[in-house]
Amino acid sequence: MKTNKKVSAAVVQRLPRYYRYLGDLLDNDIARISSKELSVRMGITASQIRQDLNNFGSFGQQGYGYNVGTLYAEIGRILGLDKSYSLILIGAGKFGQALVNYPYFSRRGYIFTALFDNDPEIIDKAVGGITVFDANKLTDYLKENHADIAVLTLPGSAVYKVMDVLTNANVKGIWNFSGSDLNTPKGITVENVRLTDSLMTLSYMINEDEILRRVRVE
Amino acid sequence: MKTNKKVSAAVVQRLPRYYRYLGDLLDNDIARISSKELSVRMGITASQIRQDLNNFGSFGQQGYGYNVGTLYAEIGRILGLDKSYSLILIGAGKFGQALVNYPYFSRRGYIFTALFDNDPEIIDKAVGGITVFDANKLTDYLKENHADIAVLTLPGSAVYKVMDVLTNANVKGIWNFSGSDLNTPKGITVENVRLTDSLMTLSYMINEDEILRRVRVE
Repeated sequence: MKTNKKVSAAVVQRLPRYYRYLGDLLDNDIARISSKELSVRMGITASQIRQDLNNFGSFGQQGYGYNVGTLYAEIGRILGLDKSYSLILIGAGKFGQALVNYPYFSRRGYIFTALFDNDPEIIDKAVGGITVFDANKLTDYLKENHADIAVLTLPGSAVYKVMDVLTNANVKGIWNFSGSDLNTPKGITVENVRLTDSLMTLSYMINEDEILRRVRVE
Repeated sequence: MKTNKKVSAAVVQRLPRYYRYLGDLLDNDIARISSKELSVRMGITASQIRQDLNNFGSFGQQGYGYNVGTLYAEIGRILGLDKSYSLILIGAGKFGQALVNYPYFSRRGYIFTALFDNDPEIIDKAVGGITVFDANKLTDYLKENHADIAVLTLPGSAVYKVMDVLTNANVKGIWNFSGSDLNTPKGITVENVRLTDSLMTLSYMINEDEILRRVRVE
């Protein structure tokens, strides 16, 4: 197996799902599972599971299946959950505050270390025990502090100025809730969460029959 | 064109993206665009754009391209944004509150009409001008009121009881933030938003080189 061969995005996106399902099995005291059984639960084929895991090494044994605890720990390690990550939040409005206060993230090693906003009403107040800094201080902050991931919970129109600062400061990951598509230089990974797109997709789906009748007949 | 042929999920998921790009063009006073130019901006092929739109009718003219305003309005109509939707929120914690307070949703016709929680601290309080009801009242509420979409912002462990109520009440769409995979009967569409999966994918990507070296060499 080539050490440097990248893993496809589709496989990477399934890893948290494996992790979640295996965690549920552990919670239900299931210590061992066949790839067939796991595939039925997850709604993907057993061969897909084997192929996915083969990207990272060899797991499970013919005739025995997977040891749930071991595989859970291994996938956690592959996801880098044995490390911790420093997150800075840019945009400490209601949505950003909800993320900071969500306890599951810190339990998984995602630690908010600084919050920024440009609203005088919220600057110097504390959210989840962390003081909100003036967004003007972002550049200086990043000169003296490291951040693994910047979480963008600010309007799309305000994103571009921030992107320059983050790029220069060598922040490697951006979790983007701003709704804007970001053009980022090589070396920065962006994960977009588009809540409005998701809601629009849902409302299309619940109306699809009526929509198709309407647009296609006209 | 068959009226009843469904559109693939991949196409549906691109519709909000077209809508967003066309809206940006309008904001920048661009009234007309070739499929080539649109494809460069969006990073997909011109032929893909034509194929996607062909699912819904014929748009654009050879040699002229697309009229941005017309196409924007048409895609909005296809997405059902000329109608409005009633949303009920189940789980009025910080995250749910942030959704209720997000002004963009109501501007697009997604109107929160009722909020539910089981925390006595928040029941009967108002969020975004809407009173939070006791979750016990959900069944009765849905007997007397219609809801298009239920937004689940409650822990995964609490979801199953709620699902029974929603299924019986004929709610057609579920926007699921609970983290649980829902088994839903035919006729109910679920759109899952998994924030933790998204964050794990991001932290994997920023560490991929190191992770692959580590797991593959051992």
